[in-house]
Amino acid sequence: MTQDGCVFCAIARGQAEASVVYEDASVLAFMDLQPVTPGHLLVIPKAHSAGLGDLPEEAGIQVWRAAHRLAGALRASGLRCEGVNLFLADGEAAFQEVFHVHLHVFPRFAGDPFRIDADWRVHERDRLDRTAAAVRKGLAASRAAGGPGIMPA
Amino acid sequence: MTQDGCVFCAIARGQAEASVVYEDASVLAFMDLQPVTPGHLLVIPKAHSAGLGDLPEEAGIQVWRAAHRLAGALRASGLRCEGVNLFLADGEAAFQEVFHVHLHVFPRFAGDPFRIDADWRVHERDRLDRTAAAVRKGLAASRAAGGPGIMPA
Ligand SMILES: [Zn+2]
Ligand SMILES: [Zn+2]
Repeated sequence: MTQDGCVFCAIARGQAEASVVYEDASVLAFMDLQPVTPGHLLVIPKAHSAGLGDLPEEAGIQVWRAAHRLAGALRASGLRCEGVNLFLADGEAAFQEVFHVHLHVFPRFAGDPFRIDADWRVHERDRLDRTAAAVRKGLAASRAAGGPGIMPA
Repeated sequence: MTQDGCVFCAIARGQAEASVVYEDASVLAFMDLQPVTPGHLLVIPKAHSAGLGDLPEEAGIQVWRAAHRLAGALRASGLRCEGVNLFLADGEAAFQEVFHVHLHVFPRFAGDPFRIDADWRVHERDRLDRTAAAVRKGLAASRAAGGPGIMPA
């Protein structure tokens, strides 16, 4: 359930410092040390999962439910909050740095420093349809393998 | 349940074109027209909600559950996928452009064009603790008001 050397497991066990805003049997939410904006939270499952692939479906739902409620809390907090982003990085290529699942929830406001950038070109329908076919095939394969949260044998 | 002029409602009703990858009673997932990377999906509740504040908690859970499974599908799709990001923009200040809740799910790989930028400075513990206190107050206020998904009267 916990992994040696995992800082978020240590926080979940109360063995490392954190500014906690919410806790229940399966989930903990606390302030990010390097907030994008003041109010930036991380919501984690208490039980260790490195990523979405080994996160039990029910644990993910608990994380989401807390994040949804905490987004409302940020808007009601008096902190500057004109919008909210949820962000999850699954894997190093996706900018994951701590390998214990965490969902970022952070306030946004006009002029804040958060920026995203990409190549926003519109793709043609036949290309999108081919990609969709690949994803549907992946979904069938993933289901056959037991889906997320079911570790491969 | 649907809103006139909402493009995602039109897609959910089958009245606008989309490259669909997944559908059930409450959720639809289809390809983003302007993908960050090939495989970029949007997961939406079929029933119209503008944002997290008017999204019923159960509808949000269905969206999350589909997104979690689709993240696994992307990794099994054969598309280039070394990691996955989930991203949700709630409100214009948070970069929301279509005001029907949608959760982005997109593949990531080394050298892809997606970038995020912010001021990543570490905040001191007493500042984080004060912010956490504000969020806990906001959570209590939000709960007293009925929480997310409960529209103010
Ligand atoms: Zn851990
Ligand atoms: Zn709509």
